[in-house]
Amino acid sequence: MSKEITPRDENYSAWYNDIVIKAGLADHSAVKGCMVIKPYGYAIWEKMKDQLDAMFKDTGHVNAYFPLLIPKSFLSKEAEHVEGFAKECAVVTHHRLMNDPNGKGVVVDPSAKLEEELIIRPTSETIIWNTYRDWIKSYRDLPLLINQWANVMRWEMRTRLFLRTAEFLWQEGHTAHATADEAIEEARTMLNVYADFAENYMAMPIIKGVKSANERFAGALDTYTIEALMQDGKALQAGTSHFLGQNFARAFDVKFLTDKNTEELVWATSWGVSTRLIGGLIMTHSDDLGLVLPPRLAPIHVVIVPIPKANDDIDKIALDILAQLKLKGITAKYDNDEKRRPGFKFAEYEMKGVPIRIGIGARDLANGEVEMARRDTLEKSQVKLEGLVDTIINTLDLIQNNLFERSRQYRDQHITDVNSFDEFKDVLTNKGGFVRAFWDGTTETEEKIKELTKATIRCIPLDSKEEEGICVYSGKKATQKALFAIAY
Amino acid sequence: MSKEITPRDENYSAWYNDIVIKAGLADHSAVKGCMVIKPYGYAIWEKMKDQLDAMFKDTGHVNAYFPLLIPKSFLSKEAEHVEGFAKECAVVTHHRLMNDPNGKGVVVDPSAKLEEELIIRPTSETIIWNTYRDWIKSYRDLPLLINQWANVMRWEMRTRLFLRTAEFLWQEGHTAHATADEAIEEARTMLNVYADFAENYMAMPIIKGVKSANERFAGALDTYTIEALMQDGKALQAGTSHFLGQNFARAFDVKFLTDKNTEELVWATSWGVSTRLIGGLIMTHSDDLGLVLPPRLAPIHVVIVPIPKANDDIDKIALDILAQLKLKGITAKYDNDEKRRPGFKFAEYEMKGVPIRIGIGARDLANGEVEMARRDTLEKSQVKLEGLVDTIINTLDLIQNNLFERSRQYRDQHITDVNSFDEFKDVLTNKGGFVRAFWDGTTETEEKIKELTKATIRCIPLDSKEEEGICVYSGKKATQKALFAIAY
Repeated sequence: MSKEITPRDENYSAWYNDIVIKAGLADHSAVKGCMVIKPYGYAIWEKMKDQLDAMFKDTGHVNAYFPLLIPKSFLSKEAEHVEGFAKECAVVTHHRLMNDPNGKGVVVDPSAKLEEELIIRPTSETIIWNTYRDWIKSYRDLPLLINQWANVMRWEMRTRLFLRTAEFLWQEGHTAHATADEAIEEARTMLNVYADFAENYMAMPIIKGVKSANERFAGALDTYTIEALMQDGKALQAGTSHFLGQNFARAFDVKFLTDKNTEELVWATSWGVSTRLIGGLIMTHSDDLGLVLPPRLAPIHVVIVPIPKANDDIDKIALDILAQLKLKGITAKYDNDEKRRPGFKFAEYEMKGVPIRIGIGARDLANGEVEMARRDTLEKSQVKLEGLVDTIINTLDLIQNNLFERSRQYRDQHITDVNSFDEFKDVLTNKGGFVRAFWDGTTETEEKIKELTKATIRCIPLDSKEEEGICVYSGKKATQKALFAIAY
Repeated sequence: MSKEITPRDENYSAWYNDIVIKAGLADHSAVKGCMVIKPYGYAIWEKMKDQLDAMFKDTGHVNAYFPLLIPKSFLSKEAEHVEGFAKECAVVTHHRLMNDPNGKGVVVDPSAKLEEELIIRPTSETIIWNTYRDWIKSYRDLPLLINQWANVMRWEMRTRLFLRTAEFLWQEGHTAHATADEAIEEARTMLNVYADFAENYMAMPIIKGVKSANERFAGALDTYTIEALMQDGKALQAGTSHFLGQNFARAFDVKFLTDKNTEELVWATSWGVSTRLIGGLIMTHSDDLGLVLPPRLAPIHVVIVPIPKANDDIDKIALDILAQLKLKGITAKYDNDEKRRPGFKFAEYEMKGVPIRIGIGARDLANGEVEMARRDTLEKSQVKLEGLVDTIINTLDLIQNNLFERSRQYRDQHITDVNSFDEFKDVLTNKGGFVRAFWDGTTETEEKIKELTKATIRCIPLDSKEEEGICVYSGKKATQKALFAIAY
């Protein structure tokens, strides 16, 4: 089975696609740019969703649901937002089909034209802030801390499963606050939640930073981001959190009565992560044999395979291990299908990234042992049957940590400081990864660099220290270093 | 606050709407027919969803996600399905907006017309069976037991919050089987899951039955249903499960290789429940003071209110109770907001249907007691502080059972057997509820009865015994009794 995967060295993009398809994560659909998320891929999304949802609730948020469709005119109310989102989107113009008068299936009923076209939400700031106008009257109604799990649609020209699809699943937080400081604090808190999730659950190291003006969300005063590095040296924006100032409150006339009885515009944030995270997860850890999953997000933690096939003793021991693991919250599967050979099963579970495989054979059993294989290192070892459950639990922790450490080392080795534009281009071409360089702070320089190298400013890291230097491109005075990379 | 609710006797429909709005469950939106599900309403949906999802997984199902948009031509592939669903639906015709050349906001870009229009899914049989064609090759791929949690859209003319909205949230199961028997078994299993959920979680008694041919899902050979009775004597279809035969397999050419190496069409089921259940929940239990919730679906089980206001002693005891309840999985809230009087709080939590209210006052405390109020019966009692947590847990069980028993009695009293059409009309007009009568089995009679009385056949109950009689309308020979009612 593994033979069917294109090796990373040969074609990284084909390797990625092979994994998505052959591990059964997602598939292309009959609708251009839209994917089907298959059960195994959706199970990973459910794990992500459950964990993130718990983290959102722990930070005081509640969920709600707003309409899928947005009146066209809403998009025009916030000037920058309309530029960013009104362009490529799905437009609903009619509300009825009718039998084709020529007898060929169904056609749009011209008499059912909508007075105003509706847009499938590309993001929900406009419809939500139009609703908040009715919900927020006084400082007592603030803060309003709401999240929505939803599907959204952006009519992308070039799509890639999980990474960029026309329809995708995501969560979007939309909060309302009485002061700018409180809103900024919220945006940063949610960035930290995303960072915690990425590093401690996805085992994907990230850099927290703020976007340049040019790369901000349409309508935001500041966009915070977590940026990850994929194995091919390209960056992936994994989550963003926006301080929206009073822009949406102004556009939708959302004012509140302060405790001093004055009327003020409300301050806003929004923040989101999407099924794109699954793409990041794949590209951070997987190898030429298939998917590699961090235990905390793996739908199946352990698979038990009888070698070469099951007998009563093996069945009994396997079921006992399953039961013990279940008590500890570990999801295990016993694959005693006699129609498939062990080698075939091994390849399949490697493809699916199951973190631990336990092989049970008669000879090992006689010694009170079983074979344990780790998906992350591909190491096999003989382990004692006695205490096996503890061994498995410890090993799952080791795998989780090893995946993070391995990716962190790769990432750290791929942050390169450069002092000249030649060096900048050389690193991008020959090494890849993040390039850290002085930048004069102008959009002009940023765009020129992008034009010449395809690299964009991923962020100004939050932990940057202020320092003086010379812009790597313009030679002008610079007061900050930016992190550049070619990005997904 | 309660004063603002229209009493049921005065106007049931206004009462319903008042509860939805004033308990903070949902709101109308800027898009005609689409609702905003507010945090409290969404919290109830999350409880429903979590429980149903666990029940689906316990019966072997997995979740997946299919595209929101369906090519128009797909709808035409199954003849009955297109009649049922292609009529009132949202049609996407373009994929881009552009700045209005006259400078007024944005307009549809005429050059971005889609080659084939796309429909926002009213239900997903077509796109899913088009996908299953690639997934199902052999009997080894069957059964395929998949569920999807999604939003769907049907362009309804008359909408009511939760009960009938253009967009709604639901789950749709779509399963594929090697034999007709197995598919029928699946459809019945899922009907039983719905019945279990309705009765044991929603405390809403239901009747399980099969629909008449006329009331079947478009494209089904049989539609199973659970039918509930609302307090105004109208029936509510609460969930349906369909045996689809080979209709969709035929339409989308989904064949499999049997274990005898022959090629056959796959057998199908689909089944769904939606946010409409929240409407049923409201109308089954609530009263003129507001929402009444069964504990198993209540976002908050217990509210603790200091009387008349908090002091250090009361704070300490309240927080201790909260902590103990949390350990037992009971969600409690301590409302020590000094800006609002106890009476105001009482009315608010009654409106929101919180099952138990604990009032803590200094005088009761001196006696080692607190006041406990039940939302279902409005009874108040003094209960000992010692053992309070156990008292609360027992009382939550009592409330859950009482709500079910109360509704079951009402329902049982409102199933009336009739032997003449005059009696039929009299019961419908003066008593309401279900009317059980012999029916000759023809669509003609069914439609005539509907025309004359507005009553439809809700189902032929699964537990009906075969008996011979005379049709209540046509006077013809009949072999079965049907359950008629005016329905939501």
